[in-house]
Amino acid sequence: MRNSSVWLAAARISLMVILVSSITSLVPGGVEADEVRKAVEAANGQWAAAFNRGDAVAVAALYTEGATLMPPDRQIVRGRQGIQEFWQGAIQRGLKDAVLTTVEVQADGNTAYEIGRISLTVHAKDQTPKPISNKYVVVWKRQADGSWKLHVDIWNSVPAK
Amino acid sequence: MRNSSVWLAAARISLMVILVSSITSLVPGGVEADEVRKAVEAANGQWAAAFNRGDAVAVAALYTEGATLMPPDRQIVRGRQGIQEFWQGAIQRGLKDAVLTTVEVQADGNTAYEIGRISLTVHAKDQTPKPISNKYVVVWKRQADGSWKLHVDIWNSVPAK
Repeated sequence: MRNSSVWLAAARISLMVILVSSITSLVPGGVEADEVRKAVEAANGQWAAAFNRGDAVAVAALYTEGATLMPPDRQIVRGRQGIQEFWQGAIQRGLKDAVLTTVEVQADGNTAYEIGRISLTVHAKDQTPKPISNKYVVVWKRQADGSWKLHVDIWNSVPAK
Repeated sequence: MRNSSVWLAAARISLMVILVSSITSLVPGGVEADEVRKAVEAANGQWAAAFNRGDAVAVAALYTEGATLMPPDRQIVRGRQGIQEFWQGAIQRGLKDAVLTTVEVQADGNTAYEIGRISLTVHAKDQTPKPISNKYVVVWKRQADGSWKLHVDIWNSVPAK
């Protein structure tokens, strides 16, 4: 009897632990979701600041080491080094004034996806600055230190107004 | 003593449950990941079959009710009805011969992302069929019945060979 009551108590507590953790992870739009959205928006702020000062190294540092970049009309770019070179090229082509707007964030465990919009301006030599509007999806991964990094980044254009 | 040993046993078992479930959910590329990839590839097979027979209703049924479609040079399309209309339009413009190739799938809880490639052919009236190559990211959501549905779908072009 004594042994069985121990196991019964253990089983009850285990069940409660499973239930509570399941419910917590299933609640959409809770405290966790707000926190992830804030972390993503903060990282986007750093992304835009780094890009707009022409610092491709700092931009690339916001991606995971094995991140995937999927620019339009290009092959898939794999890894932080290639991502740095891609953004360095974009900066050299005169892209700046990046403004990122998060439309939606949903997190599940250590992964989140974000839908957003980015506007930029192309400052090409001897030409009037030209605005660009894109929409994007970013898959974010929570790191061991609790920060969130871009893991997959894909975008395409929206129609000119 | 008797009470404290009950709680100790309960605490130990609870800790084991937490540890085992954490480890299971953290293992990348395990049985779970294989299963998700297989489910995604099977759903992609259904997507291509439906699209290639011109059945936009069946294509749209593979998306979640509140899914987001992000086609190049278009505004964001929200919801299954709009998604059906978009694919209906693509079918009417002569797109067919869709072949989807999954490059990577990673799952976290009830969410997975897929990186893939899609090739299509445009059969426009009185014109030679023209091949199209795109790459895409799809965020998949596991449904209550265990199936996986497309929840976010974005793509862009790859350079012509």
